[in-house]
Amino acid sequence: MKIKALFIAISIIAFLVVPAMAADVSSDPLPSWNDGKTKQAILDFVAATTTKGSPDFVPTEARIATFDQDGTLFVEKPLYTEFVFALDQIKLLYPKHPEWKTTPPFSTILSGDRAAIEKLNPKDMAKIVAVSHSGMTVDQFKEVVRQWLATAKHPRFHKPYTALVYQPMLEVINYLTANGYKSYIVTAGGQDFVRVYSDDIYAIPPERVVGTAGQTKYTYGQGGKSELVKLPKVLMVDDKAGKPSAINLMIGRRPYASFGNSDGDQQMLEWTEAGIGKRLMMLVHHDDAKREYSYGNESKIGRFSDALMTEANQRNWNVISVKDDWKVVFP
Amino acid sequence: MKIKALFIAISIIAFLVVPAMAADVSSDPLPSWNDGKTKQAILDFVAATTTKGSPDFVPTEARIATFDQDGTLFVEKPLYTEFVFALDQIKLLYPKHPEWKTTPPFSTILSGDRAAIEKLNPKDMAKIVAVSHSGMTVDQFKEVVRQWLATAKHPRFHKPYTALVYQPMLEVINYLTANGYKSYIVTAGGQDFVRVYSDDIYAIPPERVVGTAGQTKYTYGQGGKSELVKLPKVLMVDDKAGKPSAINLMIGRRPYASFGNSDGDQQMLEWTEAGIGKRLMMLVHHDDAKREYSYGNESKIGRFSDALMTEANQRNWNVISVKDDWKVVFP
Repeated sequence: MKIKALFIAISIIAFLVVPAMAADVSSDPLPSWNDGKTKQAILDFVAATTTKGSPDFVPTEARIATFDQDGTLFVEKPLYTEFVFALDQIKLLYPKHPEWKTTPPFSTILSGDRAAIEKLNPKDMAKIVAVSHSGMTVDQFKEVVRQWLATAKHPRFHKPYTALVYQPMLEVINYLTANGYKSYIVTAGGQDFVRVYSDDIYAIPPERVVGTAGQTKYTYGQGGKSELVKLPKVLMVDDKAGKPSAINLMIGRRPYASFGNSDGDQQMLEWTEAGIGKRLMMLVHHDDAKREYSYGNESKIGRFSDALMTEANQRNWNVISVKDDWKVVFP
Repeated sequence: MKIKALFIAISIIAFLVVPAMAADVSSDPLPSWNDGKTKQAILDFVAATTTKGSPDFVPTEARIATFDQDGTLFVEKPLYTEFVFALDQIKLLYPKHPEWKTTPPFSTILSGDRAAIEKLNPKDMAKIVAVSHSGMTVDQFKEVVRQWLATAKHPRFHKPYTALVYQPMLEVINYLTANGYKSYIVTAGGQDFVRVYSDDIYAIPPERVVGTAGQTKYTYGQGGKSELVKLPKVLMVDDKAGKPSAINLMIGRRPYASFGNSDGDQQMLEWTEAGIGKRLMMLVHHDDAKREYSYGNESKIGRFSDALMTEANQRNWNVISVKDDWKVVFP
């Protein structure tokens, strides 16, 4: 009886204190966003799906949000971070592969011709990623990535790549988390690569990173110890129509909110929208050359085609203008 | 200041009340287990990895446990539940495929010859599963499975298959959950199949089910609505050496505890053991024909070979005897 009384006391105190705190903390959960239609869409979505009694209420366990990474959560220009890593790896591996000097696409990389490198096609890029991401164990790969991230700097902002995250998007992740949502990264980038830093920079743990993945081979190393070796063979490509498939494989639930920035995210947003009830579809549009970059239909990396813009307008998806919607870009 | 004072009050009350409750609830977290070496191994593992200051302490976010399903969490004899489902589907689909009457392995199924069906090899079984699990959308498949589970009964126990879970293993999952562990199913069974009921019967949500998976195709159905169609093509086989690869793909962390019951789980346990610090490796050994089934080296389904038993003994893995370690088998 004594314990029961104590519990009643705690409940009463909690009842009095918690709403006061919540009101205080949530006064503006998105301080880096300018007021307007876009910000309001996020606030309305969260209110509609998390308020008990709302016709669009979603139970906590089903609250799933998916975020593309490159161009949606962090800078993807002038080259995808992971691709810069791959280029550096090729240079490191070159002494063991003198034949690369005359073998494209490796010869292009070794030439150092930046313009030519930026023009490499997806097939060449895939070849470079496959070679630079394999032939070692999963644990060794993580260590190589960790070391590279510790020293590599972005050519324009002169900061580590992991510092170039979008502050307004971090606020969206935090706001969703505070409202019972689980956020996943769904990226065309390499799953094993992004998992090295996702928890540190986005507070998204490795098991919530869905990405392009290679095959691994189980084997026995020194002393008969189990090892997983990365093979230069693709298991799944998590881009375009591959994104809904990867979401189904890795999560097994349909997202209620999806965030992207390019043609690679179109199907993920369609798949999200096709679910029952209220859903949130958003696309970051890079239109701020001064603070970051400005690119769209013409861009090879992170292409936001005119066709996608038309679809977004027709379906009433929310297009985020970096210039108009974001007070700051970086933390 | 007033709120701060209230918080201090709550903290003091919580400090007094919570340990008293914990002691009460955890008096025996594994009541269906007989006292002995096996039960003690589970208790010791949890204490060692969750007690602050312990040399083997594991932070909450890294507390991952993986469970095989068939034969580890529920009955797999005389046939895997999913295979029984597949057989029933083949019979339903037969009118559209009259050629099956004379085409093995379909003809074997349609003959109804139970002994011949139980002797089908893995390749034939894979063919049957592929055909019965494809040609529809992911959502349609879930509905078909749901309807089948609602009426199908086990031939010996005359209960729904989902009622034939092992009570002692449910207690292990609950005990691990109460101690901050996240439990995953890692099964050679179909991921989409197991996800239909895993939350209901094990309290393991779909995103924590890792299984054999087929490819899916993103397409547009009626009214241009997004759909994912299941293809009769395998993406990954989550068995034997495929289990560590699937764990790496789907979770991205190494488990601290792994539970299996057959040769299909050997590599998962080796992979678990190869991690740093204290790990728990357990194998259910079915030696109780009276209450359930007795099988081992000779069995085609759920084979627990003599070689695996030798490895388990050499590595000091824990072998669970259904007869000796479990007070009850079913809830």
